[in-house]
Amino acid sequence: MTSTDLVELAKRRGYFFQSAGAYGGVSGFYTYGPQGATLKQNVENSWRERFQVREGHREIDAPTVMPEPVFEASGHLDTFDDMLVECPECGESHRADHLVEDNTDIEEAESIPIEEVEDLIAEHDLKCPNCGTELGGVSVEDFNLMFETNIGPGSSSPGYLRPETAQGIFVEFPQLAEYARNQLPFGITQIGKAYRNEISPRKSIVRVREFTQAELEHFIDPTEDEPDIERVADVELKLYPAEEQEKEDGEYVYRTVAEAVEEGLVHEWVAYYLGVGKQWYESIGVDMDRFRFRQHLSGELAHYAADCWDAESEVDGDWIEITGYAYRSDYDLSKHDEYSDDDFTVFKQYDEPKVVERATVDPDMSYLGPEFGGEAGDVAAELEKLAERDRAAFEGDEVTVEVEGEERTIPTEKTGFGVEEVKETGEHIMPHVVEPSIGIDRVIYTVLDHAYEDDVVEGEERSYLSLEPEVAPTFVGVFPLVNKEGMDDRARGIADDLRAEGFDVTYDDSGSIGRRYRRQDEVGTPFCVTVDDETADTVTLRERDSTEQVRVPTEDLPDLLADLREGETTFAELDAAAPEQ
Amino acid sequence: MTSTDLVELAKRRGYFFQSAGAYGGVSGFYTYGPQGATLKQNVENSWRERFQVREGHREIDAPTVMPEPVFEASGHLDTFDDMLVECPECGESHRADHLVEDNTDIEEAESIPIEEVEDLIAEHDLKCPNCGTELGGVSVEDFNLMFETNIGPGSSSPGYLRPETAQGIFVEFPQLAEYARNQLPFGITQIGKAYRNEISPRKSIVRVREFTQAELEHFIDPTEDEPDIERVADVELKLYPAEEQEKEDGEYVYRTVAEAVEEGLVHEWVAYYLGVGKQWYESIGVDMDRFRFRQHLSGELAHYAADCWDAESEVDGDWIEITGYAYRSDYDLSKHDEYSDDDFTVFKQYDEPKVVERATVDPDMSYLGPEFGGEAGDVAAELEKLAERDRAAFEGDEVTVEVEGEERTIPTEKTGFGVEEVKETGEHIMPHVVEPSIGIDRVIYTVLDHAYEDDVVEGEERSYLSLEPEVAPTFVGVFPLVNKEGMDDRARGIADDLRAEGFDVTYDDSGSIGRRYRRQDEVGTPFCVTVDDETADTVTLRERDSTEQVRVPTEDLPDLLADLREGETTFAELDAAAPEQ
Repeated sequence: MTSTDLVELAKRRGYFFQSAGAYGGVSGFYTYGPQGATLKQNVENSWRERFQVREGHREIDAPTVMPEPVFEASGHLDTFDDMLVECPECGESHRADHLVEDNTDIEEAESIPIEEVEDLIAEHDLKCPNCGTELGGVSVEDFNLMFETNIGPGSSSPGYLRPETAQGIFVEFPQLAEYARNQLPFGITQIGKAYRNEISPRKSIVRVREFTQAELEHFIDPTEDEPDIERVADVELKLYPAEEQEKEDGEYVYRTVAEAVEEGLVHEWVAYYLGVGKQWYESIGVDMDRFRFRQHLSGELAHYAADCWDAESEVDGDWIEITGYAYRSDYDLSKHDEYSDDDFTVFKQYDEPKVVERATVDPDMSYLGPEFGGEAGDVAAELEKLAERDRAAFEGDEVTVEVEGEERTIPTEKTGFGVEEVKETGEHIMPHVVEPSIGIDRVIYTVLDHAYEDDVVEGEERSYLSLEPEVAPTFVGVFPLVNKEGMDDRARGIADDLRAEGFDVTYDDSGSIGRRYRRQDEVGTPFCVTVDDETADTVTLRERDSTEQVRVPTEDLPDLLADLREGETTFAELDAAAPEQ
Repeated sequence: MTSTDLVELAKRRGYFFQSAGAYGGVSGFYTYGPQGATLKQNVENSWRERFQVREGHREIDAPTVMPEPVFEASGHLDTFDDMLVECPECGESHRADHLVEDNTDIEEAESIPIEEVEDLIAEHDLKCPNCGTELGGVSVEDFNLMFETNIGPGSSSPGYLRPETAQGIFVEFPQLAEYARNQLPFGITQIGKAYRNEISPRKSIVRVREFTQAELEHFIDPTEDEPDIERVADVELKLYPAEEQEKEDGEYVYRTVAEAVEEGLVHEWVAYYLGVGKQWYESIGVDMDRFRFRQHLSGELAHYAADCWDAESEVDGDWIEITGYAYRSDYDLSKHDEYSDDDFTVFKQYDEPKVVERATVDPDMSYLGPEFGGEAGDVAAELEKLAERDRAAFEGDEVTVEVEGEERTIPTEKTGFGVEEVKETGEHIMPHVVEPSIGIDRVIYTVLDHAYEDDVVEGEERSYLSLEPEVAPTFVGVFPLVNKEGMDDRARGIADDLRAEGFDVTYDDSGSIGRRYRRQDEVGTPFCVTVDDETADTVTLRERDSTEQVRVPTEDLPDLLADLREGETTFAELDAAAPEQ
């Protein structure tokens, strides 16, 4: 199978296709067709069940357009850039780091400084992939990946399409903490659109400009909250630590979650969610032989992140990131605390009030005033800060502080320095954040790619999607063998009954039975029911992967299908139990 | 109750609040908190069930950013404007039509031409609501409501945030028709974000800049498809026809769907969906005494729409549109057919091939060539068009066509004109579109507003939301009477069991029982379960609206709650059946 096969099947069967094809299409924008939209909902609901409901977290739904100050604080305005090189001949834009990666042995060129990338392009005589012009000597620029727009009339209120759903959670932390009655830990999830104005979108829905993220921000007290490792202790992880990646013959390391934490291989909070994630990927049909957790190399690691691992899947021979698991420390909240007027801490009450010593000053303003004039207030403020920071500075006869670059000296006796005992009932703490950040579109691509199978049935080649029943957008196809003798009415009746029981059903009466089976095989429908003229009270139930068929009583269908969906029986067991045909 | 009460409750209890409050907030952008996000999902799922699954339609999921050519075709680039007047003194922007409506008796000022609005502002001495400056003489401008951005590096590819989800469906019609195997009728739904860069956002989530739409585009063959009116024939509609609105003492007209169609009051396809809609609004708790279907006045009606009715709800004394039901004819598809290179028709096969006469030409190029030189091809093409259009033109000795503004005359004998009989197997038809377009945020505002109640319980005032169990984000609260004697463990166990049964459960052990009830009353939780020390095997079940309590066996809880949720029993029945306490 090639990626073209999958992309063609996806378009043919209603999974996804490039948008606005009537107008020539737009790179990096895809539409989910009827099967794809349902698969997406199933994947999202299954994520919600595993990462939110079972973990006791709550969900919010924030806007996709956000005002500029948010991204000044988050750092995206300054640093959310890719390296852009524009061909001077044909005008085509390229990602400079991708050019280097694609044409040299260098990996992760994204973390190489821009000047070095320019040098590499020259050294390796890299050419424009579009027209072949030499790109050596062409300058490489930083290109900000946020889509910009204006809010309201005029251009005075720039806004941006959020580059990650996370900021919609961080920026509302003060309100969300109130909903949690200021008790840590608590977790907030969001599923929604995010946008990156990629220079060169790639690989259909893998690198797109508009995508769906499912993010969890788990806010914890770093001094005392610990994950409940027991819940996932025995989950086996296939790990690719930074150390192994840097070796020439680096290998995967297999550990349970408990072992990984015990050995200090993975940060405990990150390890907890790797365990949750592993269970989830497996349940939705990611092939565990084509899956790994890869630790960020030191060059990749954001400066604020204590530990970061990507869940990666192998598709078309490449490893792609489908989830980032990061321990983000207090980076995001402290930035918003600094840039906004709101308080991004929670007040943590002590069990018992604590008596603490606190150094204070009470400067003699009748001395400071005449001595320092308009600067007297600043001098007093600096004295207060110094007392908090360094009591020893007040041990001599004189104290020196700096005000606007100038040293000011004050006799200690005029500072009113003293140490007092105060009773504190608690303290303000800045929560740390643990973040599993899932790219839903990439998970969907992986699920489809790993489900794609070719085989030969009765001498004929077929392609099918062996999707897990939990996520398959259509669960059962119902067909009349022929469109007459009441078979069509019976089949429609069965389809309606199954729909009423909550199954995703498709009814199909066009073309030969073989062709209808092939169609549902390509859609990935796990089961098909065919109504024939053998008897009125039985039907044929066929399984997609094995193409085996078994005759079952019509009235048992809803229960049988429910058992198959819940995994309480398998088709092989049904087959074995059925009388010979 | 005032709208302030509702907005404050919504913020306090986690329904919705203005976004980015830490940075002063941004007009027209709201975040749904934990309760609101779940309410929104419940409303969306209930819409999906009623308008999509039960009607046999399919859903897609298209991007929110779309390229410029789509909106050139749809007309949004040219005409999706509001009237903007900017105060020359303070610089504040206002909607000119709203100024007129708010300060005169004039309604629907939106449909008044811009010059007349300028005159009205001057005539009525209207002032800037912000600073009081006279606005007479200030020019009123058209302001396009789409958010603009750029796709990719540079500014050569403008894109817009879609102003309606519908365009994401229309523009993909050729592909979607293939999924439907080119058989009409078929319906496509989409739930997603849409954006309007409002000049002055109003009334919290009622008029916002980013909102959620649920739209259905039902594609039909106008010559033969008819709605299955029987399915909703008896649904009672409260109608406010254009004719009644134009009378001084206009009144509502009450008709069933069948009657409305029979009397020609409402277009049959629109009437069908008014019936579906009415059932839906009622099921999610819209107060039918504060609800109506209002027909568009001739001035409001888009030129392409054959009939259009708005579902309106009354909130805070105003009527707001919560859904538009439009018969859009073939306007959208024919525009995209015209502007793009794709074919937006479906080929409709005749039952029997038809033999039709067709006029053709076969021009003598050895005459046209020397005679018209480089224009010969164009002349031939014009002859062909003329033959299709007007056979009579070929009855004389000469035929005249126009090529680039110049008349060209050709002897009829050189045109090779003839009429032949051809067998046609079918024809290309441009489907018509019926569109129910729901504003999810406005539906949510209505549901909350209509559910908001104040009363006095045991001498104390309380506010509560009498939300329908179908949409209530929290279905049951579970409390231990006190946090000891094992009551808390029993209560947690019950909460876990109910969660496992699929109920939305909240557990609360903080504050007095009375305070916990009030909290859930404000959240709109229909039922609360309190674990006390009376007996280990019974609990108290309390209903929100009546505040009545009844003691029930713990083991019966899941079934009882399921019956209450499905409406298979009522709390009053439970209460009557319970032994005296």
